[in-house]
Amino acid sequence: MKAWQFTDTHEPLVLSEVADPVAGPGEVVLRMTAAGLCHSDVGLLEDEGWLSMLAKRPITIGHENAGVVIEIGEGVEGIALGDRFGVCPTTPAGAPGYSFDGGFAPKMAVAAEALVPIPDGVDDVFGAAATDAGMTSHAAVITNGGVKAGDTVGIIGLGGLGQIGARVAVLAGATVYVAEVNEAVWPLAAEIGAAGVAASIADFPGVVFDVIVDFAGFGSTTAQAVDIIRRDGTVVVVGMGRLEATISTKSLILNQCNLRGSNGGSKADIAGIYEFMKTGDLVPQVTTIGFDEIPEGLERLHRGEVRGRLVATFD
Amino acid sequence: MKAWQFTDTHEPLVLSEVADPVAGPGEVVLRMTAAGLCHSDVGLLEDEGWLSMLAKRPITIGHENAGVVIEIGEGVEGIALGDRFGVCPTTPAGAPGYSFDGGFAPKMAVAAEALVPIPDGVDDVFGAAATDAGMTSHAAVITNGGVKAGDTVGIIGLGGLGQIGARVAVLAGATVYVAEVNEAVWPLAAEIGAAGVAASIADFPGVVFDVIVDFAGFGSTTAQAVDIIRRDGTVVVVGMGRLEATISTKSLILNQCNLRGSNGGSKADIAGIYEFMKTGDLVPQVTTIGFDEIPEGLERLHRGEVRGRLVATFD
Repeated sequence: MKAWQFTDTHEPLVLSEVADPVAGPGEVVLRMTAAGLCHSDVGLLEDEGWLSMLAKRPITIGHENAGVVIEIGEGVEGIALGDRFGVCPTTPAGAPGYSFDGGFAPKMAVAAEALVPIPDGVDDVFGAAATDAGMTSHAAVITNGGVKAGDTVGIIGLGGLGQIGARVAVLAGATVYVAEVNEAVWPLAAEIGAAGVAASIADFPGVVFDVIVDFAGFGSTTAQAVDIIRRDGTVVVVGMGRLEATISTKSLILNQCNLRGSNGGSKADIAGIYEFMKTGDLVPQVTTIGFDEIPEGLERLHRGEVRGRLVATFD
Repeated sequence: MKAWQFTDTHEPLVLSEVADPVAGPGEVVLRMTAAGLCHSDVGLLEDEGWLSMLAKRPITIGHENAGVVIEIGEGVEGIALGDRFGVCPTTPAGAPGYSFDGGFAPKMAVAAEALVPIPDGVDDVFGAAATDAGMTSHAAVITNGGVKAGDTVGIIGLGGLGQIGARVAVLAGATVYVAEVNEAVWPLAAEIGAAGVAASIADFPGVVFDVIVDFAGFGSTTAQAVDIIRRDGTVVVVGMGRLEATISTKSLILNQCNLRGSNGGSKADIAGIYEFMKTGDLVPQVTTIGFDEIPEGLERLHRGEVRGRLVATFD
């Protein structure tokens, strides 16, 4: 089969002829139905810093995957041919595209422990998008933020992850206020169901925040969140816009603020996103392209031309 | 009766003749047995910033109190004459010495809801010391840090609170490492039962910390703790040595660090400290003085001449 493989930094992806994967013990082979393109794929092509994360080279990349089971390895139980799954990139099995050949190919072998069932009614394209952007947003808002019905929640940054995070918070029953410096995307806040939008999380006088999730992570955004959070409230930092933040330890202490980093997520977070998608109320912005267009799609991502998630489909 | 009263900043305490207190509804009158002296009392005498916290002036100060019930007000249940109590300074009833007349007097009226029973076997001097320094240390280590048996815990700063915090962590069954810049107090770390002591929390290579409690709060100490904490570990900041900390949000996110401010504590924290004291294994360093020596004691505190907690006793 033909697979898009990474050979080295600053080199274009190569469409290589590779052997069809075989399901080893504990593994399945998926026929790929959807594979998301991610800014970290762009990073891999441009920054040598990523090389140390690769288990081998050349390697088929693509870490945001959905597919249908076409082969079942020894010792795998509870999985049938034809079942649809998303692939969690954070299990001990490792990450597709880094630890083993990923999803920019018609077929992928993967450990059964990494699989999350895609419910009926959830499209494969969403099934793939949920495994990275969705998982990370769910982990930040629900798992680490602890957002629940009745909470008042601030979402800082309405980019790809922030949009999903804000919507998840609304669907969880929270009252959501959005802080976003780019006024061009303010209308989206209302579409998502936010109660208000402003340039800064400090621009909502009188609002008492139980949880603030900082998807921007510009240091100052985190510091503002710590200053205004209610006593015993939670501030989650997931965005890494800057690598440092100077926060007021006085605010941290007097507010007994719980400032928490959120990194990635788990199969439970992907399953949680699927539950929201199943209702039809969580519809992430997605642009689909064909398998042949993957390298061009990465260039579009690099040029900042893509709104929402870019997902390759297979046919 | 004679009470030590605060009149104004930069003025010495005045030994005034005041009316004996009477137990209003929901209150008791305590015959004072022990009243701790605190650096915040020194602050009150020197810094106008504290004035806004006082409900009235002149006011009898003293917020770290223990006593025996000698009068019971209307509606108070479950309390008998002669019962011994410490007074929690953080209940809705307010803080003695700030919201109402405090413990630098032979008698004090206080809401029954603020009382924490002192168990048999715990001296009144310890009973008083537990209500502020003890409560704050217990809240930081146990309530907010979640320290439990088997944890590996870092304690930064071996001052008055850090000493209690480190000992509480040891008694809770944790393996404790102490970071303290002042080598003169290093021998105390071994007495407390610490597994190691060094100048910085980063000086324990190979040790994986579940929880680090920063009693120093010098900004850099908090930043170091966030850098080295294990994934999903907790860093508690209770000391306010500096009002700001520049932390690595990269470390915060990659470690999924839980950075938490700890401010004060509750009746449950005081009761928790009493439980440790009851076993005889938690013996805070205490120096006792007489009631007449309170102003002189505050001066000694101000000059930094006091080791451990200074507690006035009454006879």
